Amino acid sequence: MVVSDLVAWLDYAGVAVFAATGALTAARHRHDIVTFCFFAAVTGIGGGTLRDLLIGAPVFWVEQPAYLAVCMVAAALIWILGERPQGSRLLLWLDAVGLAAYSVLGAAKAAQMGVPPLAAVVMGVLSASFGGIVRDVLAGQPSVLLRREIYVTAALLGAGAYVALRLAHVESSYAALGAFGGAFALRAAALRLGWALPAFPGRDETKPAAPWTGVPPTE
Amino acid sequence: MVVSDLVAWLDYAGVAVFAATGALTAARHRHDIVTFCFFAAVTGIGGGTLRDLLIGAPVFWVEQPAYLAVCMVAAALIWILGERPQGSRLLLWLDAVGLAAYSVLGAAKAAQMGVPPLAAVVMGVLSASFGGIVRDVLAGQPSVLLRREIYVTAALLGAGAYVALRLAHVESSYAALGAFGGAFALRAAALRLGWALPAFPGRDETKPAAPWTGVPPTE
Amino acid sequence: MVVSDLVAWLDYAGVAVFAATGALTAARHRHDIVTFCFFAAVTGIGGGTLRDLLIGAPVFWVEQPAYLAVCMVAAALIWILGERPQGSRLLLWLDAVGLAAYSVLGAAKAAQMGVPPLAAVVMGVLSASFGGIVRDVLAGQPSVLLRREIYVTAALLGAGAYVALRLAHVESSYAALGAFGGAFALRAAALRLGWALPAFPGRDETKPAAPWTGVPPTE
Repeated sequence: MVVSDLVAWLDYAGVAVFAATGALTAARHRHDIVTFCFFAAVTGIGGGTLRDLLIGAPVFWVEQPAYLAVCMVAAALIWILGERPQGSRLLLWLDAVGLAAYSVLGAAKAAQMGVPPLAAVVMGVLSASFGGIVRDVLAGQPSVLLRREIYVTAALLGAGAYVALRLAHVESSYAALGAFGGAFALRAAALRLGWALPAFPGRDETKPAAPWTGVPPTE
Repeated sequence: MVVSDLVAWLDYAGVAVFAATGALTAARHRHDIVTFCFFAAVTGIGGGTLRDLLIGAPVFWVEQPAYLAVCMVAAALIWILGERPQGSRLLLWLDAVGLAAYSVLGAAKAAQMGVPPLAAVVMGVLSASFGGIVRDVLAGQPSVLLRREIYVTAALLGAGAYVALRLAHVESSYAALGAFGGAFALRAAALRLGWALPAFPGRDETKPAAPWTGVPPTE
Repeated sequence: MVVSDLVAWLDYAGVAVFAATGALTAARHRHDIVTFCFFAAVTGIGGGTLRDLLIGAPVFWVEQPAYLAVCMVAAALIWILGERPQGSRLLLWLDAVGLAAYSVLGAAKAAQMGVPPLAAVVMGVLSASFGGIVRDVLAGQPSVLLRREIYVTAALLGAGAYVALRLAHVESSYAALGAFGGAFALRAAALRLGWALPAFPGRDETKPAAPWTGVPPTE
């Protein structure tokens, strides 16, 4: 009971946090309130939308407009509160919560629909990362995919751990909490300690070493 | 009868006009005729395609290839007529007709399928704007989303007014015509008078003030 | 029997080759292994995914994770083998095989589902080209669409020839092989002889003549 309540709250919280990162992107480009809402909605519900299309489920927010309302509220809050240095730091951590929650919820919804394990893992990863990818493409900024930091990898850990624990017959709520904790811990380590996976060796032909990561340029 | 004929014509006209803006983008980049057709099709039918996928309807042009043929004809016309300064101005106004028509038609189709009001409004906005967004992303040019002008907002007015009028039990054809007129009038005002919504206040960190709009740079 | 085996092999081979081009893009940007797999999967199965969504079929790789596994293997191979000048040349030719195979397979699957001829041709073109388009958009590099070379055109020939031969009551396997051969021959000619369709005449306002093609700049 308590666990399933927690899951429902994580669901709305994940949408709200992703939506806020979308609105912040609109703020950085000085957009108007309608574009704020557009970016908030695309980022907040984009990942789950792709997941539902791929597994053949009805798209979750079409029947439950509460998700759209959550995105609008997030956009309005960012508009009212404005940009604050400490807010953007806070959001990075909330985004880590959303990432971990959505990787697990996405995999769980796919598994529930009878999707095979490997594809269910992919659905978890897409649920957690696709909204942010579309946000970056629409804003014309380098995608989270192109940053050499542990982001998609944390989603992969969350979705993979959930599916693996379920295959080992761990009860669904416990599997979800364990996988959520693992994904959040990995993302937190990346944020605090600058963890990154080793890059493909060789000289980058396209640009100088990315300044976003804590790792030294590839040798 | 006359009204429903008008709606059918607005439908094809909207696709043709959007397709022409796609072909014009290909012309600006000196592409070949196949890429002309590709851009015309993506822009002409992209918005309605996303709407149909999201509401779970069969994608409209798959069963009725006449829409594809309209896009090909539009691409061929742009190829033959070439670029003309006055043509691009004309197209801006025709695009305003397409925008207004599609925001209403998109919302109406969603409402007909039983989609709840808030989601139906979103479907109208996406039908009217998504084709142009994909066109801009594929062409690598700044998206219509990133221009601080009233474009998505006009689509929002059209879709929102239609849904609101229907909730107030206005007959469907009248609601459609009223909403179409409102959306077109707002877009026309933006084109003629340089109307824009207020931007999020603060210094734009990403680039100098956009030269596209009639509004002064944000203070 | 032999022909249908060939078709099945072409299917996996096409996915593998497209996936390898995705992984090579990740290699050029010095990404980590997770991003390698992401780019490999998006490029390898992106086109078929869009086709299945548009024709209302279950997405092919969700039920058959072997396709995902093929993408992972392709990503791992590129990671291990590294970039080699001759490898990238080989891949260009393998990509031509994938392009020809997928244009035919995509049109054939759509036709089998009862999609009308013109729309089936579009499905073939999208199956063959959409994965590469998404790869380029995500990597922030100029899309294959924007290069003035015969690429989408070869896919159009393959899909169009297959549908035309089937309408002329040619047996499915023969139609597939003939269309495949035509598409591959056209793409090969483009690669070897620098063939290109004539560009839309006029001065390119957006950038200097593209250096990718064998054709002289438009006059």
